[in-house]
Amino acid sequence: MLRLCRSNVQNMQQTMPNWLQNRAYLTPNRVAIEWSKQEITFATLHKQVEKTVRQLTTYRIYKGDTVAVHMTNSIEMILVIHALQYMGVVAVLLNTRLTIEEIKWQVEDANAKQLICDTYIEGISIPQITTAQWSMGKEASIELQTHYHLDDVTTILYTSGTTGNPKGVMLTYGNHYHSAIGSALNLGLHQDDSWLACLPMFHVGGFSLLMKSIIYGMKIVMHESFDVRAVYNDMMKGKVTLISVVTKTLQEIITLADQPFPKTFRCALLGGGPAPISLIEECLEKGVNVYQTYGMTETASQIATLAPEYVLAKIGSAGKPLFPCELQIRKDGTNVSAYEEGEIVVKGPNVTQGYYNREEATKETIQDGWLYTGDIGYLDDEGFLYVLDRRKDLIISGGENIYPAQIEAALMSHPQIMDAGVIGMEDDQWGQVPVAFVIASGLSAEEIFDYCYTKLARYKVPKHIYFTDSLPRNASNKLVRRNLYEWLGE
Amino acid sequence: MLRLCRSNVQNMQQTMPNWLQNRAYLTPNRVAIEWSKQEITFATLHKQVEKTVRQLTTYRIYKGDTVAVHMTNSIEMILVIHALQYMGVVAVLLNTRLTIEEIKWQVEDANAKQLICDTYIEGISIPQITTAQWSMGKEASIELQTHYHLDDVTTILYTSGTTGNPKGVMLTYGNHYHSAIGSALNLGLHQDDSWLACLPMFHVGGFSLLMKSIIYGMKIVMHESFDVRAVYNDMMKGKVTLISVVTKTLQEIITLADQPFPKTFRCALLGGGPAPISLIEECLEKGVNVYQTYGMTETASQIATLAPEYVLAKIGSAGKPLFPCELQIRKDGTNVSAYEEGEIVVKGPNVTQGYYNREEATKETIQDGWLYTGDIGYLDDEGFLYVLDRRKDLIISGGENIYPAQIEAALMSHPQIMDAGVIGMEDDQWGQVPVAFVIASGLSAEEIFDYCYTKLARYKVPKHIYFTDSLPRNASNKLVRRNLYEWLGE
Repeated sequence: MLRLCRSNVQNMQQTMPNWLQNRAYLTPNRVAIEWSKQEITFATLHKQVEKTVRQLTTYRIYKGDTVAVHMTNSIEMILVIHALQYMGVVAVLLNTRLTIEEIKWQVEDANAKQLICDTYIEGISIPQITTAQWSMGKEASIELQTHYHLDDVTTILYTSGTTGNPKGVMLTYGNHYHSAIGSALNLGLHQDDSWLACLPMFHVGGFSLLMKSIIYGMKIVMHESFDVRAVYNDMMKGKVTLISVVTKTLQEIITLADQPFPKTFRCALLGGGPAPISLIEECLEKGVNVYQTYGMTETASQIATLAPEYVLAKIGSAGKPLFPCELQIRKDGTNVSAYEEGEIVVKGPNVTQGYYNREEATKETIQDGWLYTGDIGYLDDEGFLYVLDRRKDLIISGGENIYPAQIEAALMSHPQIMDAGVIGMEDDQWGQVPVAFVIASGLSAEEIFDYCYTKLARYKVPKHIYFTDSLPRNASNKLVRRNLYEWLGE
Repeated sequence: MLRLCRSNVQNMQQTMPNWLQNRAYLTPNRVAIEWSKQEITFATLHKQVEKTVRQLTTYRIYKGDTVAVHMTNSIEMILVIHALQYMGVVAVLLNTRLTIEEIKWQVEDANAKQLICDTYIEGISIPQITTAQWSMGKEASIELQTHYHLDDVTTILYTSGTTGNPKGVMLTYGNHYHSAIGSALNLGLHQDDSWLACLPMFHVGGFSLLMKSIIYGMKIVMHESFDVRAVYNDMMKGKVTLISVVTKTLQEIITLADQPFPKTFRCALLGGGPAPISLIEECLEKGVNVYQTYGMTETASQIATLAPEYVLAKIGSAGKPLFPCELQIRKDGTNVSAYEEGEIVVKGPNVTQGYYNREEATKETIQDGWLYTGDIGYLDDEGFLYVLDRRKDLIISGGENIYPAQIEAALMSHPQIMDAGVIGMEDDQWGQVPVAFVIASGLSAEEIFDYCYTKLARYKVPKHIYFTDSLPRNASNKLVRRNLYEWLGE
C-alpha cells in the first residue's frame, strides 16, 4: 500500500487558513450577517472581530485558555465567538436558561478561566466580563491565529441530557468543518443562499450555522430569538433560502402560513426529534421542503438527512448519513437486519472525540471509532434511518417497547392539539404505562382517547391525559421529559 | 492548547466510505454517467465496477499493486479507474499520445506491474490486459476496499513537462477529495448539476471530474474526445450546467455559437493557461460565464479560481485560492509586494506530497509544505492572482522578461488568427527574441507585425512569424512549446 507517512501529510492537510479572515480575503463584500435591519460584510466582520480580540486581550485572555460564554443571539455574541477562535481560546457556550447552580457547575467542570456574558451574573466565582465592559474597553495589541489546526478543540458544549450531570462535548475545528461540508454535499450550495438562524447559538444547531457562514461564504439572517411572526415574514419576503427548525417552531410557522412560500425558499432543516407526518405533509402543501434530520451535539449538528429526492417517498425518515459519515443499528454489539430496532451508532469526521475530562464516559460512548448514541431506531431495506426515540425515554409496558415520540406525534396530528408530551408512569400491572400532557382547545379527554385508538395500537394509548397550558421545552424547543416526570410526581 | 492526539483522531477523520459504493447507497437512482445516448445510475455503475473487479482479479492484480492504464475516454475506462480504487491499486494513467519509448519509460519509472489498455501495444515488456480480454473474461471472488484512507495514493499522473523527463505526481484520495470540496465551496453545488467531460481522463482535469461525480453525487456527460459540434449541442440543449475547457476548445465552441446559451448553463471552467481577454468578453456576451482557473497536476486540478462576483471586474485574473488553500508570490524565498512578479507557491490539502521515487525533485519542489510551481505571476492589491507564464518558457530579451502566453493572447485576439505559439530564439544582440508560429488566413506577416505593434510593447513583438497549418498541442490541448523549439531547429 502506498500510504504517505502521516507526519509529512499532517501539516498540509490538517491546518487551514483562519476561516473568517480567509472569507474577508476571498469574498470581502458578501454579506456575512443580517440582523434587525442591519448587515455586515465578511470584510467588516473580520475587522470588528479583530477589534474585539484587542478588547478581550486587555482582560488577560490568552491562547490556550478556556473561557465560558453566557450570551443570547446578538452581533456581540457572534463577535465574541469569532474572537475566541482568532485567539485560540476554547469557548464553553452556556445555555442561558441554566440556573446559577448549573452555570457554576459547568464553568467549574470545564475549568473555564473567565466568563464573558451579556450582563453580570450574581454568585459565580470566576471573573466576569460583560459586553458593556469589553465593548467599551481599551485595546491591546494581539497575535491572531492565522491558521486553524483541525484537531484543535474550539468549543465545549454541554449536552442537555435529560438525566444525570451534563457532559462537555469537545468539538474541534475539523468536526465543525466536516459537518459543514457534509451538509453542503447533501443540501447543495447556492450562490444566493441565506440561512435563517433563530436557534440559540449556544446550542450546536445554532452554532453550526455560524461556522457554515464562514466556511461557505454565506449570509445568515440572525434572529435574537424565535419570534414566529418575524421568522415567517423573512421567509415570505424571500429573504432566506434555508432555515433550521425543530418540530414546535415549524408547526408555528406553518400555522401562520396562508399562502405558499416563495420558490426561492429551498428547505427547512428539521432537527430535534421526529415530527408528525401530518406536519410534513402540510409543509409540502405550502411549498416548504422539509428535510428531516438526525443529529446531536456529539455530531456537531446533523449526521443524517433525508436527501431531496426522497422527501415524499420516505416521509418520516431521517434519511441516510451525510457523505463522509456512517451509521449502523446495533444490538449487543452487532449489526441488526433491516427493520430490526437497535441502538444507533455513528462515525464520521464531524463526530466528537469525547467528553471533556470524562474518560470513562468517553470510553463508554465511543468504541472503535463508533459513537453509541443511546438512541433507538431502525433502517429500512434501503438503508433509510427511522429514529424511534431516545433510549432513556423508552417506556416498557407489558414487555412492549413504547416510544413517547410516536405517541406525541399521533396526538399532535389532531388539529386541536397544539402540543403534547408523553412519559411512562409506574404501573403495578404493566410495569409502566404511557401518560400524556397536552395543550388542547375544546377537546375532552374522552375525545382524545377515541382519537388515539384510531391512530395507535391499544397498548400505546396513554392511560391518562393531563391538560396543561405549557410544556417544558429547552432553549432549542426540545421537550424536557425530565420535568414531566417531576410534574407527574406532584 | 487543547489539541486532540492525532493517533486517536486519525482513524475517524482519515478514512471515508468507498466513494462510489457510498453513492450507490446514498443516491442510487441518480444518473452518474451519460455518454453516447446511454446513461448509468450510481447503483448500476457500482454493480458494473464490482463485476470489473472480479474480472480484473483473475489477472492477478491485487491490493497494493501499481497498474498502468492506457485508455481513452470510455465507459470501460471509467469502470477500470473505479475498479482499481475498489481494489486498493494505484493507477498510473498514461497519456495515449505517448510514443512507445515514453510508455516504456513511465511504466518502468512507476514500477507498474501490468498495463490495462484499449488495445495491445507492441514493444512493452510488462503484461498487458486489453479491454477485450478483461471484459469477456472469467470472474474471481473479491474483497472490496469498503473504505478509502485519505493518505493512500490512488493515482500517479506524469506531468507533461516541456523539458526533461516527466515526473510521476502522486495524488492521494485526500488530495482528490479536498480538490472536489474546494471547488464546490467556490462554484456552489446544485441538485441538477451536470458536468460535461471532454478532457481526457488520463489528465488531472478530466480525472478530477470523475472524482467530483462520486463525491458530489453528480452526473457527468462524458465525451470520448473533443468534438466541438457535439459539445456545443449538449451545451445548447441544456444538458449540462458546467464544462471544463482550455482556451483552444472554448474558442472553438464560442465561434460556433450563433445564439445565447441556455440560462441553466452555469459556467465554463477554463484551465491550462491564460486566455485572451477578447475571448472572455465574447463568452460573456453569449451568456457563458467563464471562470478562469489556475492549477496543475500537482494540485489535483485547479487551486485558484475567479469567484463569480469578480468575473467582470477582474477579467484575465485566475482569482483567489480555493477556500482550504493558500497561494503566495515569492522571490528568493520571501513574499513580494502586490503587483511584483515572482514564483507562484501554493499550499493546501489538494496539493501532492511529492513525485514518485523522486526524493530530490520532491525536496526541491515542496519546501515547508509549500509547493514551488515554477510558474510566474503576481497578486494585485486585493490579492487576485494574475498568471504570467510558466517559468521554463520565460523569454529573456535584453534583460526584459517576456511571457510567451501574453504574446499568444495578443496574436489570438486578431479575428483572422486561429491559433498561435510563441517561443524564444537565440539572438546575438538580445540574448533571446520572441518568434511566433501562427495559423492565420488571409494575413501577411507584415499585417501581423503591424497588429502586434498596436497591442504589445516593441520588445515583445515577435521577430519572425512562421505560418503553419497546425500547432503541437497535447491531449489537453495545451501547447507543447518543446516541439516548437524542435521546429525552429529545423
